[in-house]
Amino acid sequence: MADPRPVALDAFGGDKAPDAILEGAAIALGQGVPVVLVGDADRLKGRVPRGIEVVHAPEIVGMDESASTPLRRKPKASIRRIFELVAEGSAQAAVTCGHSGAAMAAAMHVLGAIPGVDRPPLCTVVPRRDGGQLVLLDLGANVDCKPEHLAQFAVLGEAYARAVLKLERPRVGLLANGEERGKGNTQVRAAFGKLESLPLAFVGNVEPLGALRGECDVLVCDGFVGNVMLKTVEGTVEVVGHVLRDELRRNPGALLGRWLLDGAFRRFRQRTTYDSVGGAVLLGLDGVAVVGHGRADARAVASALRYARNCAAAGLVASVRHDALLAFGAAEGALAGISTEP
Amino acid sequence: MADPRPVALDAFGGDKAPDAILEGAAIALGQGVPVVLVGDADRLKGRVPRGIEVVHAPEIVGMDESASTPLRRKPKASIRRIFELVAEGSAQAAVTCGHSGAAMAAAMHVLGAIPGVDRPPLCTVVPRRDGGQLVLLDLGANVDCKPEHLAQFAVLGEAYARAVLKLERPRVGLLANGEERGKGNTQVRAAFGKLESLPLAFVGNVEPLGALRGECDVLVCDGFVGNVMLKTVEGTVEVVGHVLRDELRRNPGALLGRWLLDGAFRRFRQRTTYDSVGGAVLLGLDGVAVVGHGRADARAVASALRYARNCAAAGLVASVRHDALLAFGAAEGALAGISTEP
Repeated sequence: MADPRPVALDAFGGDKAPDAILEGAAIALGQGVPVVLVGDADRLKGRVPRGIEVVHAPEIVGMDESASTPLRRKPKASIRRIFELVAEGSAQAAVTCGHSGAAMAAAMHVLGAIPGVDRPPLCTVVPRRDGGQLVLLDLGANVDCKPEHLAQFAVLGEAYARAVLKLERPRVGLLANGEERGKGNTQVRAAFGKLESLPLAFVGNVEPLGALRGECDVLVCDGFVGNVMLKTVEGTVEVVGHVLRDELRRNPGALLGRWLLDGAFRRFRQRTTYDSVGGAVLLGLDGVAVVGHGRADARAVASALRYARNCAAAGLVASVRHDALLAFGAAEGALAGISTEP
Repeated sequence: MADPRPVALDAFGGDKAPDAILEGAAIALGQGVPVVLVGDADRLKGRVPRGIEVVHAPEIVGMDESASTPLRRKPKASIRRIFELVAEGSAQAAVTCGHSGAAMAAAMHVLGAIPGVDRPPLCTVVPRRDGGQLVLLDLGANVDCKPEHLAQFAVLGEAYARAVLKLERPRVGLLANGEERGKGNTQVRAAFGKLESLPLAFVGNVEPLGALRGECDVLVCDGFVGNVMLKTVEGTVEVVGHVLRDELRRNPGALLGRWLLDGAFRRFRQRTTYDSVGGAVLLGLDGVAVVGHGRADARAVASALRYARNCAAAGLVASVRHDALLAFGAAEGALAGISTEP
């Protein structure tokens, strides 16, 4: 039976808030996702779509404020209150398109990390050439990582792929500049051995081209590199679309070609992160926390809400907790076995 | 007047060597690029296109050998001899599609670095949405970099953009996960100040999406990140092409649509790295050294030869030498000024 509890949505997060947020909430509600809006009730009065309740949160964290603002200066901020609703058990998941640093700080503070997780990573999926989905993490929560953090990301990403994508034995790859063992920078070379010692289907180093072709299901990297990779995918899709339209304009079959192309591109975008997923989930927390794109329009907000509901419905948190305990336990055992003198 | 000296081409480098190499040499020669083939004369006998000479180099470095092989075990390797021809002044540039680590080691050893350059980066161009070209470096020559290396890459990339792309004042960006100052990992944050102190049009941090839209002309990053970005562009182009063809197949106008799309994609690929440039140039050396793709086919080999000839004809080495001296001198002065007590 579907969880009747709503997804808590930050009404005042994102470049187009609250208009796009309100519209996105209405779309998602129409698609069967229960939503509760969190924000300043006075400012929302008379604008809330029918069937949606409001939880009052009088403060707003601006994009120019520090990430710690919801912890210190503005404890009543909407970007914090959404996670409190999850922690209290009155919402099944939380979504914000606001200040991502503040969202992560608030989520970490309010929900807390699952045992064994030091640094919750941001995770999303990217469409692969073979029609599958590539789970990519970290996307920017941790721009400076140690090898053991990459090992934690591997476990969390694998648990995600099992729970949400329903893969039985997800193949985990380590993002590198070549497939051979020994490729990669110092960090990646050190992480290789740690990933090997985990109870995962580790397929070794994987290059971006190979990953996008389907050589692995989960691709692990630090948050700086993952952010570059995700935004390069977005940017390249944009460049290709622009150049192709430009090329077709020069062609005698132009109008028909552009019409076909536009339709194809629309359906393509529906498969990509931004439109179909609408955000990234912060893994390793004791609750489902989805961080949407700051530029999210109503459709992307609705996608983020559906995504959050799907993660919650898939039992993501329980799955991550189970796999994390198992893996970190096993890994510690393995490492202990190596380092212990007879 | 065009330089009459040939471009030295490693006949035994690349997955499809020597067949694709020989064919590529013939194509380039037909396009007005003089070529000299370097490799085992016995094995090339009877297969060399008319109008092309052979310089004998009896040894071949395999893909499974170490990068130092042309320096130690196989000093007569073709992948080393091509750079010797440049150093001797009998070739205007050198091209290999072989072992890229060995190519870089041999080029560095034989040609030597320009004063002020510690770690020559690999550099190429990627098509931007606005029709311009994005100079991207390093692409993998240096996977672990210090901030001062990124500063050197900035100077070298800017000199490249002036000389080869004929830009008067190239805008230089630092690849990061956000545009604000203070974004980036530890390395990038430390490099920011160093780039600021250089006599360049430094535009600050640039995200991949912004760079591909045209916010800068030169994008600086370490070799690990640059390699990920370049290969993600390649992979995404492949995924988009595949998905679009797939989408069009479902459409009633399928045949016409695919025909239009294939033409557009062909022309698009002609604008991209792999087909139109065919390789990356190793910057900061006392000679033009181009490293082609290991999977290069004949057309890509021809592109790499044209690219090498264009870099040489543009006076790349003299330009880099001039700008490097100027910039590193100025930067050292600036840094000395900061650290010197009154």
